[in-house]
Amino acid sequence: MSGHASDHVDGKRLWSDLMQLARFGAIELGGVNRLALSREEIEARQVLVAWASEIGAEAAVDAAANLYLRLEGREPSLPPLLTGSHIDTQPTGGKFDGAYGVVAGLAALRAIAASGRRPKRSVEVVAWMNEEGSRFAPGMMGSAVFTGKRTLDEILAVRDKAGVSVREAIAPVLDKEKHLPRRPTGYPVAGYIEAHIEQGPALEAQEKTIGVVTGIGGKRTFRVEVQGEPAHAGTSARRERRDALVSAVAIVDALQKAIWDPADEVRFTIGSFTVTPNAPSVVPSRVVFSVDLRHDDDATVRRLGELVPAVCQDARGKCDVKVVPLLYDPPLEFPATMRARVAEAASRLGYPAMELPSPAGHDSRYLHYHCPTGMVFIPCKGGISHNEAESITQADAEAGARVLADVLFALADEG
Amino acid sequence: MSGHASDHVDGKRLWSDLMQLARFGAIELGGVNRLALSREEIEARQVLVAWASEIGAEAAVDAAANLYLRLEGREPSLPPLLTGSHIDTQPTGGKFDGAYGVVAGLAALRAIAASGRRPKRSVEVVAWMNEEGSRFAPGMMGSAVFTGKRTLDEILAVRDKAGVSVREAIAPVLDKEKHLPRRPTGYPVAGYIEAHIEQGPALEAQEKTIGVVTGIGGKRTFRVEVQGEPAHAGTSARRERRDALVSAVAIVDALQKAIWDPADEVRFTIGSFTVTPNAPSVVPSRVVFSVDLRHDDDATVRRLGELVPAVCQDARGKCDVKVVPLLYDPPLEFPATMRARVAEAASRLGYPAMELPSPAGHDSRYLHYHCPTGMVFIPCKGGISHNEAESITQADAEAGARVLADVLFALADEG
Repeated sequence: MSGHASDHVDGKRLWSDLMQLARFGAIELGGVNRLALSREEIEARQVLVAWASEIGAEAAVDAAANLYLRLEGREPSLPPLLTGSHIDTQPTGGKFDGAYGVVAGLAALRAIAASGRRPKRSVEVVAWMNEEGSRFAPGMMGSAVFTGKRTLDEILAVRDKAGVSVREAIAPVLDKEKHLPRRPTGYPVAGYIEAHIEQGPALEAQEKTIGVVTGIGGKRTFRVEVQGEPAHAGTSARRERRDALVSAVAIVDALQKAIWDPADEVRFTIGSFTVTPNAPSVVPSRVVFSVDLRHDDDATVRRLGELVPAVCQDARGKCDVKVVPLLYDPPLEFPATMRARVAEAASRLGYPAMELPSPAGHDSRYLHYHCPTGMVFIPCKGGISHNEAESITQADAEAGARVLADVLFALADEG
Repeated sequence: MSGHASDHVDGKRLWSDLMQLARFGAIELGGVNRLALSREEIEARQVLVAWASEIGAEAAVDAAANLYLRLEGREPSLPPLLTGSHIDTQPTGGKFDGAYGVVAGLAALRAIAASGRRPKRSVEVVAWMNEEGSRFAPGMMGSAVFTGKRTLDEILAVRDKAGVSVREAIAPVLDKEKHLPRRPTGYPVAGYIEAHIEQGPALEAQEKTIGVVTGIGGKRTFRVEVQGEPAHAGTSARRERRDALVSAVAIVDALQKAIWDPADEVRFTIGSFTVTPNAPSVVPSRVVFSVDLRHDDDATVRRLGELVPAVCQDARGKCDVKVVPLLYDPPLEFPATMRARVAEAASRLGYPAMELPSPAGHDSRYLHYHCPTGMVFIPCKGGISHNEAESITQADAEAGARVLADVLFALADEG
């Protein structure tokens, strides 16, 4: 028996787990397509349950299909420490976004188990349901329900583009896992630490192994609906058309210009853009597109977000436009105590570390309002993420898991 | 027994047939979604066969799923006269585009049968396979194969967006119709007359009942493929992105400007525009869109078509762009003899008529290179087509069928 849980982290096993998980939904260029509540995700969850059982950690599930893997502490009645992330991916995602946090959490649990010492509190690894939000929007659904940000009924009613509701898609998941104990959606938690790949270039550029995440940037999202009228491509005069694509293109162009900052710090993305009827010889009658706007500064997020409806109206041409605000998440800062824990553990283990904010959203956003929360970042190659080319090193993966193991053990062993 | 087939056209039955056909694929705003080779189209074809059998007209089918309804003439070995159109629709189409030509053809057949006189040649109503081309592009597939413009193997290999090939989609159609005699795809034809709604505003504006179609305008189509790279919407800087939507929007904008004519005679449409992965928090990696360009003047069609690749390359920004030419159909003029037949029949029946060109494509385009071809237009409200709001009057529908019946009888009764 040794003094630190980090001494027992098995880097090879951690890496093999990551590669094995990536097989569920593997796509041609080395990436992963494992949408929330898909068959691939159901299969991957079974593997997580099997891995947990190897070390006597018990799996449980709640009505929002959040999956919990619990290593019992010395005082099981105390609120547990939580770690984890998500295992759903974007349609052409990589092997590590989300999956790393869950697999590193399991590596930490395994290390704690191997150390021979049990902390006072139980430690649980969670795989939150639908963080990515690309099948069912918006994302971070499981953690939103767990923390009371959204109700279960609200998320169960959301439908994907094929018209399938979360209620329908979640049924086979819960059925497959009906032998597992059922948890309430939300209970007292002593703290939450999430490990994640940076998804940006800072750690790599500064040659740091560990990122101490200071907080999460602000985010506003909208759905813009442009309504025109279908017409025959061969007979209708352009002046008389109400072409939804022509209007949508003008609106996108106007938004690009209005939301340009010379410092290039604002993140502005139109990721989804769907045309109806989408036939070569019919003038488009309708376009629906997404607007995703992010910045660290709340005033900037507010100001730019307030521009969106007016810019859309001004550029709409002959079509009607409706701007539906979907989400406004102000920037947040993790507690200094949690950041200090991560920084101290990294320092004691000799890993070069730096503080940095997360422009990307994570389940930690919602946990932050529920319990003391912190995040550990590890570098990812070129800052590339939401891309099949996502890449990390085995050494960095191990470093992140070792920091995580020590922080979890220390927090779980406290009063 | 009376002197003219037109005396026996039953306008009420014609209208009731149109309304009954519109039930197959009926959608909420009064329109029709009956894509080529869909279940709805298979069901509608069965009704056509049943209607033909009422007057002793025999149905037959060829390997391209063109459906023929033949009223035998006095000399069955002579090449027949053909009439017809198509019964597939756009995804949000109306009740009359295509369907009118087939139903009016059947009304003419019925009138000839009722007149008690048989012309020398047989008369056949054809429902050509996939005129619209919105499921399998490009359209006019059945008439292209019939006239030797495209091979059967070529069209069977075309796939829809879901990856289903024409070969796969045609199998259930031919299976359902396996009891029908099988025709060769293409045989000698004495002439072709197609009735159609105008799909433009000229007849209505000039208060004419019958349009004597002078010819069909020129058309060029392209597929533009914009290739960028996926990235995380929250972390990737805009300057470093290769955002396929940003490039595609710039290209569309540049094309709109380059292909603008002050007289508004050029028809320029981007009807299909598909984004990958189409997820709100992923920078788009790929956009594929259609370009549809039409004009009556061949030099204009050529010149503007030749602009497309260069404009796309110039505006592509940081993405790669590939411009694939799909189709180039030069403008054509129907023979004066066929136009005169239509004009004479309209005049004798007392219908106000005018000559006009068709900017929209029709199966008549390909038949024109195969046999003497002509077209009869009837007015459609506001010139609106490829739209659920498509509207015609029962009186105009009857007028078109009466002209068609007389022209068909006269041509079929000649040497």
